[in-house]
Amino acid sequence: MRFFSDNAAAACPEAMAAIVEANRLDTAYDGDAHSVRLNEAFSQVFETEVQALWLTTGTAANSLALAELCPPHGSIICHRDAHIQNDECGAPEFFTHGAKLLLAEGEGAKLTPASVDALLATVRKDVHQVQPHALSITNATEYGLVYSPQEVAALGRLAKERGLGFHMDGARFANAVARIGCSPADLTWRAGVDALSFGFVKNGGLSAEALIFFGEADVAATLYRRKRAGQLASKGRYLAAQILAMLKDDVWLRNARAANDAAARLAAAAGGRLVYPAEANEVFLKVSEAEAAALRAQSFDFYDWGPGEARLVTAWDSDQAHVEALAAAIGSL
Amino acid sequence: MRFFSDNAAAACPEAMAAIVEANRLDTAYDGDAHSVRLNEAFSQVFETEVQALWLTTGTAANSLALAELCPPHGSIICHRDAHIQNDECGAPEFFTHGAKLLLAEGEGAKLTPASVDALLATVRKDVHQVQPHALSITNATEYGLVYSPQEVAALGRLAKERGLGFHMDGARFANAVARIGCSPADLTWRAGVDALSFGFVKNGGLSAEALIFFGEADVAATLYRRKRAGQLASKGRYLAAQILAMLKDDVWLRNARAANDAAARLAAAAGGRLVYPAEANEVFLKVSEAEAAALRAQSFDFYDWGPGEARLVTAWDSDQAHVEALAAAIGSL
Amino acid sequence: MRFFSDNAAAACPEAMAAIVEANRLDTAYDGDAHSVRLNEAFSQVFETEVQALWLTTGTAANSLALAELCPPHGSIICHRDAHIQNDECGAPEFFTHGAKLLLAEGEGAKLTPASVDALLATVRKDVHQVQPHALSITNATEYGLVYSPQEVAALGRLAKERGLGFHMDGARFANAVARIGCSPADLTWRAGVDALSFGFVKNGGLSAEALIFFGEADVAATLYRRKRAGQLASKGRYLAAQILAMLKDDVWLRNARAANDAAARLAAAAGGRLVYPAEANEVFLKVSEAEAAALRAQSFDFYDWGPGEARLVTAWDSDQAHVEALAAAIGSL
Amino acid sequence: MRFFSDNAAAACPEAMAAIVEANRLDTAYDGDAHSVRLNEAFSQVFETEVQALWLTTGTAANSLALAELCPPHGSIICHRDAHIQNDECGAPEFFTHGAKLLLAEGEGAKLTPASVDALLATVRKDVHQVQPHALSITNATEYGLVYSPQEVAALGRLAKERGLGFHMDGARFANAVARIGCSPADLTWRAGVDALSFGFVKNGGLSAEALIFFGEADVAATLYRRKRAGQLASKGRYLAAQILAMLKDDVWLRNARAANDAAARLAAAAGGRLVYPAEANEVFLKVSEAEAAALRAQSFDFYDWGPGEARLVTAWDSDQAHVEALAAAIGSL
Repeated sequence: MRFFSDNAAAACPEAMAAIVEANRLDTAYDGDAHSVRLNEAFSQVFETEVQALWLTTGTAANSLALAELCPPHGSIICHRDAHIQNDECGAPEFFTHGAKLLLAEGEGAKLTPASVDALLATVRKDVHQVQPHALSITNATEYGLVYSPQEVAALGRLAKERGLGFHMDGARFANAVARIGCSPADLTWRAGVDALSFGFVKNGGLSAEALIFFGEADVAATLYRRKRAGQLASKGRYLAAQILAMLKDDVWLRNARAANDAAARLAAAAGGRLVYPAEANEVFLKVSEAEAAALRAQSFDFYDWGPGEARLVTAWDSDQAHVEALAAAIGSL
Repeated sequence: MRFFSDNAAAACPEAMAAIVEANRLDTAYDGDAHSVRLNEAFSQVFETEVQALWLTTGTAANSLALAELCPPHGSIICHRDAHIQNDECGAPEFFTHGAKLLLAEGEGAKLTPASVDALLATVRKDVHQVQPHALSITNATEYGLVYSPQEVAALGRLAKERGLGFHMDGARFANAVARIGCSPADLTWRAGVDALSFGFVKNGGLSAEALIFFGEADVAATLYRRKRAGQLASKGRYLAAQILAMLKDDVWLRNARAANDAAARLAAAAGGRLVYPAEANEVFLKVSEAEAAALRAQSFDFYDWGPGEARLVTAWDSDQAHVEALAAAIGSL
Repeated sequence: MRFFSDNAAAACPEAMAAIVEANRLDTAYDGDAHSVRLNEAFSQVFETEVQALWLTTGTAANSLALAELCPPHGSIICHRDAHIQNDECGAPEFFTHGAKLLLAEGEGAKLTPASVDALLATVRKDVHQVQPHALSITNATEYGLVYSPQEVAALGRLAKERGLGFHMDGARFANAVARIGCSPADLTWRAGVDALSFGFVKNGGLSAEALIFFGEADVAATLYRRKRAGQLASKGRYLAAQILAMLKDDVWLRNARAANDAAARLAAAAGGRLVYPAEANEVFLKVSEAEAAALRAQSFDFYDWGPGEARLVTAWDSDQAHVEALAAAIGSL
Repeated sequence: MRFFSDNAAAACPEAMAAIVEANRLDTAYDGDAHSVRLNEAFSQVFETEVQALWLTTGTAANSLALAELCPPHGSIICHRDAHIQNDECGAPEFFTHGAKLLLAEGEGAKLTPASVDALLATVRKDVHQVQPHALSITNATEYGLVYSPQEVAALGRLAKERGLGFHMDGARFANAVARIGCSPADLTWRAGVDALSFGFVKNGGLSAEALIFFGEADVAATLYRRKRAGQLASKGRYLAAQILAMLKDDVWLRNARAANDAAARLAAAAGGRLVYPAEANEVFLKVSEAEAAALRAQSFDFYDWGPGEARLVTAWDSDQAHVEALAAAIGSL
C-alpha cells in the first residue's frame, strides 16, 4: 500500500488512451496535430492567451522558466525547502548557467511578502553581489499547503515592485486549484505570475509536463533552450496528446480532487498528529520511530521526513480501501 | 506518403504494449522493476557488462556522453555534417559547458583515421588552444552510410593513441547492425567505443533512448548530470519498458531491417541518381527542382537536402505500397 | 584618513621596484624569467613542492581553486558570510559551471567541524541532491579572526573523511601567518589544505595574486581554465616579479605585521566595543549612528557593517599618526 | 633580437610613469580617481559618448563583448583564423556559456560581406540549429592586414540587416588606425561597430586592456559579468592610469606608428617573400626551413607560422638596429 509518492501512481485512462490514439504517423517534434493545439487548449484554461510548451520533466519546466526570468549573474528567491533548491540536483543552476538561489523562510515552505522582503534587505546593491531577478514559489507547497489567489497576488505585487520575474512551480498546481476552487487564472497571471510549471505526471500523466508563459512573453529563446537541453522530444505528439486529454473535460481537476480527498481522509484520522494542515495531497504526520515501524509492519509504504515525521502522499488513483486502512491504522496508533 | 523522417513513424506494437503493461503503481524515477533490468538486458546484447541509462531524447544521450568524455575546456572531433554539430542547437556545448566541436572532413559524413589525423595536426599543444579530448562518429551516418567494425576499430585505435574518448551517435545504430549483420559488440566496445547513444525512437520506440557506457566506466557523474538536465523522468518505468520490449526477441533488429529493406528498394529504383550508397534507411537522391516537385505532386513527402538533392527516409513501418509507389515514381522521372 | 579597505592601500616599494625592474623585453605569458621561478619560490615558503600560478584577482584564485575541487554538479561548503558567497558576484558559480555553495554557521565567519557536520547531515545521499565535494574556509576570516593550525587541521581531517577537497581563501593569509607566527606549512598542507588562494594585493601587492596547489596536484586543467577565463596575462612577468619581490626577505610577513599591529592598536582603544577579537587587520566596532558620524566628522573613512557596527581595516602602509588619531577618537567616543 | 611577439615588448615610459604616479592610497576597484575618467577619455578619442571598462587581458575584453552580443544558444561569426577561435582556449565559449563560433573564409583572416553571406546561407532558420547573433572581426587582422573604414562599414551594414551585433577585436586597433590615418570613429561606430576590444598591452601597455561599447549600450550586465569573471581588479587605478597615460597626447598612436614603421622596413626587405602585405606590425614571410634556421643562427627570434612561413612581429620599442639587421639578413637570404 504505497503512499510515498504521487510519482509512483499509474497514468490515468484518459492519458493512456490518448497516447494509444496518437500512435500513428505524424510530423516530428512539435509540429504534429496535437502539439499545435497546446497554446489554444491552455489559453482556454487560463482565460487569456498563453504560450505553452510540453517538456519531459517538471525539473526541466522549472529550470527553463527560471532561465527565462534570471540571467546567469542573477539570483532567484525561493523557499529554503523549495524543490528547485533541494530536489533537482542543481538543475536551475545548470539551465541558468550559474544563477544563485537565495533562500527565504516561511512556515510550511510558504513565502510571504515579509519573508521575501527580509531576504531582499540583505542584498547590497553593488556589483560584488548577485542581484535578485526572480521569485519562485511552489503551489501547492512542498509541505502540502496552498497559496490562495490573494497570497499569490501579494507576492506578485512585491515581485513587480522589485523588478523580479515571478515563477510558480505547479508540480501540484492541479491540487491547489482543486482545493481552492478558483479559476486557474486567479492563481496565476491575475496574481502576477509570469511563468507556470504546470504539472501533469504526478496527477495522472504518463510522461508530459507543461511550461506556461503568460502575457506578452517572447518564448523564442525558451524554444531554443528546450532543444538545447535535449527536451525537444522527436515524437512530441505523445506528450501533447496526454496533456490535451487531461485538460479535456477537466480530467486534471477530477484527478486532483480524488488525491486531495484521499489526503483529507488521512488528515482527519491524523488529528493532532498533523504537522501542517493537509490542503493538497500530502499529509505530514508526527510519528515516533516505533509508530512508523508499526505502520510499515502493516504494509504501508511512505517516506520519513526528518526525525519524528512521516510524509504520506496520495494520488489520483489512491486505492480507497488502502486509504481507509491507513486512516484506521493512524487512528489506532 | 511520408518519407521525410523516421521520427514521424509510429511506435511499434511491442513498445506500445509494454507501456500499457507498465501502467501500474511502481517506484518512481529509475528504481522501478523495469529500469533496474536495463543494465542486464543491454549487457546481454553487447556480450559484456555495460552501464545503461534511459533518456528522453537522442540529443540528451549524445550530450551526456560527450560531457563524460570531454571537459569544458576541451574539444570533440566530429564530422562537419554531424548531427551533434548541426541539429542539436548547441546541446553538446550546453551539457559540456562550452567544449568546442572540431570539424573533420569525409565523404558521406564518414570520418577516417586520415581525416581525424589531419584535423589533429592543426591543433597546437599549448594552453592557448582547446585540446581534443573526444572523438564522436555517427553510425549509420547522417548520409546513410555504415561504418564497418574494421572502420570503427581503426578510429578506435587512433582515439586510444591520442588519448581521446570515443563516442558513437547511434541514433540509427540498429540500422547499422542490421546492415552489417555483425554482433553489436563488434561495432562498439570491441572496436574501442567508450559510449554509445543507442537510438530507439527512430526505430519504433515511443519516447525512450539509451546511453550505454562500456568497460569500467563510472557513471556516477552521468547520473547526477542526467538529473540536473531534467532528464530523470519521474515515471521512468515507461521508458525502460519500451526499451526492454524492443530488445526482447531482437525487435530492434527486425524493425531496422524493415526500414533498411524499404530504403534498398528505393535505392534500387534510383540507380544513378544516388548521391551515396543507401546502406541504412536513408536515400539521398539527385533530383532537379522540377523532379522534386513532380514527386511531391504525387503526394510523396520528403526533405530537400541542399540544392539538387532530396532525402528519403524509411522507417520500420514504411508502407510497402507507398515504397513501391515511390520506387516507381523515381524510376519514371 | 582611510580605514575602509586594504584594497585602497598603495603597492609596497619592493613590489613597485620589481615591476620597474621587470620592464624589459621578455617572453610573453608565463614563460618569462620571473614566472618560471614561482613554483620554486613558493615551494621554499611552504617547505614542500607546490604548484603556483599567478592571477589578477583573488576572486579568480578562489574560483579556479574551487573549479578544480568541485564538479558542476557538486557543492562547496563555506561559511554563510564567506567572501566567495557574498562578495564575488557568483564567480564560483561561473567558474565551476553552476556548483552550489552550502552555507554553514559559525561565530566570526569561522567554521568548525561541528558546524560543517551539521550541514553535511542535511544532505541526502541521492541523485536528487547536489553532493558536497569541497570545503572552503577563509583565513583570516571575513571578520578578522584567525584559524590556528589545529583548527584548520581538524577541518582538514573532516574534509578527508568525507571526501571533500579543502580550499583556503587566503586573501589575508599573510595576516593569519603573521598573527600566529607559525610556518605557512602548518596552516596549509600539513593541516590538510589542498589549495590556497594566497593574497598579495591587500598586503602591498599591486596587481598579482597567487593560487597554490599542494601535494601531487595536476594543475594542467587549471592552466587551461586560467587561459579560458582571460586570466593569462600576456605580460605575466609584472605579476610574477611583484610576487617574488614580496616573498623575498619575508616582505609579505613584514607588511602583514604592520597591518596587524595597527589593527591591534585600534582594538586596544576599542575595548568593550569590539565585536570580535582583532586577530588580523580588521577591527569590528559597536558604534551608534551618532558615534559613526562623529568619527567621520573627524575625517575617518570606513564602512558601516550592519546596523550598529563599523569595520575598520588597516594596511601595510597605514599611517601611524592616522592610527593613533583614530585610536584616540575611538577612546573619546 | 626578438621578433616573436609584441607581448614580449616592455611597457612604454608613459604607462610605467603613470603606474608609479598612481601608487598611493585611493578607492578600491573602479571608483578611483583614474577609473572614473575612462569614459570621458575614450569619448574624446571616439568623438561620441562611449562606455569603457578596463580589463586585465584582451581575451577577457573579447569574451565579455561577445557575451553581451550573443546568448548561450546563439553563434558568433568570425574568421577561421580569428584569435577568438584559435588562441583563447575557448574563452568565448566560457563567457557566453557555450555559444558556437561559425567560421567564415577570407584572405589574410579578413572577412567580406560575401564570405559572411556565404556562411549565413548555410544556417537553417529552425530551432535545431544555433542561430547567428554576432559578427566579430579583428582589425588589424591576425595576418597583419587592415580593414578600411569602408570595409568595416560594409560588414556593419550586413550585420545590422541580419540582426547581428558587431564586435571588433582591436588587439592591434592602434596599428590599424595608425596605418589608415583615419579617425577612430570612422573605423568603429560610424561603421556600425557595437563593441571594441581596444588593445593596449601589445602596444606598450603593462597590464590593461579596454572594452568600449558604443551607442546606447547598457553595460550593467557587463559590469556584473566582469566582476563574476574575476576581472574587477581590486586596485584598478593602476589599470586606468596606464590607459589614460597612453591616450594622452596620442601616445597610443605614436607607439603603433613606430611598430608599423619597423614592420614596413622588414617588409620592404622581404619583397617577394611576403605572404601578405604588411599593413600593421606583423610580417609573414615565405622562408625555407634552412633559411629560417639561418636567421635564427644570427640570433633572430621568431615563430614559424605553418610550413614554409615565418611570422615577424615588431613593437613600439623594436630596436632600430635589430630591425635593420634583420632587414639586411632577410635581404641576404
